[in-house]
Amino acid sequence: MSPLLSVSRRLRRTPFSDGVEAAGVKGYTIYNHMLLPTVFRSVEEDYHHLKTAVQVWDVACERQVELRGPDAGRLMQMLTPRDLRGMMPGQCYYVPIVDETGGMLNDPVALKISEDRYWISIADSDLLFWVKGIAFGYRLDVLVDEPDVSPLAVQGPQADALMERVFGHDVTNLRFFRFGWFDFEGNTFAVARSGYSRQGGFEIYVEGHQNGMPLWNALMEAGRDLDVRAGCPNLIERIEGGLLSYGNDMTRDNTPHECGLGKFCNTQTAIGCVGRDALLRVAKEGPIRQIRAIAIEGSAVPPCTAPWPVTVNGRKVGQITSATWSPDHKTNVAIGMVRMDHWDEGARVVVETPDGARQASVHEKFWY
Amino acid sequence: MSPLLSVSRRLRRTPFSDGVEAAGVKGYTIYNHMLLPTVFRSVEEDYHHLKTAVQVWDVACERQVELRGPDAGRLMQMLTPRDLRGMMPGQCYYVPIVDETGGMLNDPVALKISEDRYWISIADSDLLFWVKGIAFGYRLDVLVDEPDVSPLAVQGPQADALMERVFGHDVTNLRFFRFGWFDFEGNTFAVARSGYSRQGGFEIYVEGHQNGMPLWNALMEAGRDLDVRAGCPNLIERIEGGLLSYGNDMTRDNTPHECGLGKFCNTQTAIGCVGRDALLRVAKEGPIRQIRAIAIEGSAVPPCTAPWPVTVNGRKVGQITSATWSPDHKTNVAIGMVRMDHWDEGARVVVETPDGARQASVHEKFWY
Repeated sequence: MSPLLSVSRRLRRTPFSDGVEAAGVKGYTIYNHMLLPTVFRSVEEDYHHLKTAVQVWDVACERQVELRGPDAGRLMQMLTPRDLRGMMPGQCYYVPIVDETGGMLNDPVALKISEDRYWISIADSDLLFWVKGIAFGYRLDVLVDEPDVSPLAVQGPQADALMERVFGHDVTNLRFFRFGWFDFEGNTFAVARSGYSRQGGFEIYVEGHQNGMPLWNALMEAGRDLDVRAGCPNLIERIEGGLLSYGNDMTRDNTPHECGLGKFCNTQTAIGCVGRDALLRVAKEGPIRQIRAIAIEGSAVPPCTAPWPVTVNGRKVGQITSATWSPDHKTNVAIGMVRMDHWDEGARVVVETPDGARQASVHEKFWY
Repeated sequence: MSPLLSVSRRLRRTPFSDGVEAAGVKGYTIYNHMLLPTVFRSVEEDYHHLKTAVQVWDVACERQVELRGPDAGRLMQMLTPRDLRGMMPGQCYYVPIVDETGGMLNDPVALKISEDRYWISIADSDLLFWVKGIAFGYRLDVLVDEPDVSPLAVQGPQADALMERVFGHDVTNLRFFRFGWFDFEGNTFAVARSGYSRQGGFEIYVEGHQNGMPLWNALMEAGRDLDVRAGCPNLIERIEGGLLSYGNDMTRDNTPHECGLGKFCNTQTAIGCVGRDALLRVAKEGPIRQIRAIAIEGSAVPPCTAPWPVTVNGRKVGQITSATWSPDHKTNVAIGMVRMDHWDEGARVVVETPDGARQASVHEKFWY
């Protein structure tokens, strides 16, 4: 079913690739020009394990864009309609990044390291190019670069138990979307309570390529009796959880409001955001289409490799961009965007899959 | 050997993907968030066929960045150290694109459509983000966007014969790196004499996703007696030919001069190029490392998935970034970057491959 991936230097290996291979990775995707594992045993077996135990994920492909210098804060606010005035060092903010038309360029998590230093942990687009272009065009006093920092995620209900063994008890005191600095074998890494699952856990920002495998091995060793395994963002779990994927569920064509990210937009007060003018109207009136959870009836759907039309009485009212069978919920779970006249809870629609039309229903909440 | 690729909407299909699949594609890479075929029968069989017949390549992943408006020409010159004053509509220019430090952001071919309109046919990076950032930062009067244009390449010694049957005799009068407008079934497409091989051929800039498969099918049908096949950029042929690959053989760490692209840099006269100041010194003094052809002795090397050190007496003097066995030249052919004290014709070096150290020699010319 899946085609083969031809490897090359351009599809960058990560500091953890040796560990991923030793753990028997079975599939990859490419994300920020880098290898991102997609499956170890099977997507379904990985899913059940993620929900019950603990996994270590190579998410080095979440590359960092570092802003450093007197204008770092100003530049950070130019990038996003979220009001950053209350952001303190040690906080992570999920920040929609928009261009001058309000179109989504990325949906990263930003870490405020200090008043004049931020890391932006990016989704799959070369956000560095936009940030460098803006910084140069505005002659800002800031350095913008990709540092040698590679996130490693620890996810699952046993994540606290595992992390405590490697980083000490204090790491378990981290609150959600906060980060602190923790030692490992003479190095100090930022560790955040965050991650691309709904099962809880941490992301460790590993500085220095050479420090990757020692930490990977230490986590695997320490978690043996917790049944720790190599894992990866899981297609089923992320759709159940409504975790959006840039490039899948949203693109530059979409505003944050269409993506259901209006709550992260303070368009009135985010002074300086380059997309603010473009977003003022949509912020006031609301979008005319929006991300929704969609339950697709019938047997397991095929992989969604291109948008599937959502129709009502033969007229297109939206599209599906991620879909899979959910073993726990015994239905196909999907993420799509639906026009306002059909986005209310329980609305009945038809999804045109490659295997034929399916009955489906629209939901305001995801499956978590 | 090759891992599996997990497909999703984020890894965009192209207007030609149905044809590629019907032709039995065996492997892909990801390029500009899009599927790019890498092998049909085998890399070696594809290579022999490319050198003797004609192939149709899905290179839709060469996405276009369109500049349109009164400031399009000014913006285009800001992006590259190549002097564009002599560029006429109908010309293609290979243009190194650099940031404010002179680091390579992309190495596309630019098409001048008219005085106020350019297409930049990009290598694997989101150049659109940089161009939009610069245009916005400088408040230029220009629209920057990705149009619905997907290149389809026709490559090989029989390319003229095939193209003539579909587009008429005039298409064979195109000179190298010139383009003209040619009709196909009621549509008019830009057709250039260009392409990512040394075997000659054309690139057709197909406007409109829906026009992809009709053209694909027409070329396949018209070339049946020419043994036309679906093909793709061929690893062996491109290394023999010294065709660089952005992300493989060069990155943002490199100047154009290091990449052997000094001849495309008119640093003195490219007034307005944002990287000009940074490049003036290297333009005058020359780089201290540069791209070279490297012949690696012994049996076939494994795939190069990370830079291989090039050493002399145990000291690193460079790195290999692309390498493969050449059936025609009966040696391993490679692209690397070597320090000036070891880059002269015939210099002896050692290449540290994952399979062990190999003797190798440095060459100033590639194998074509």
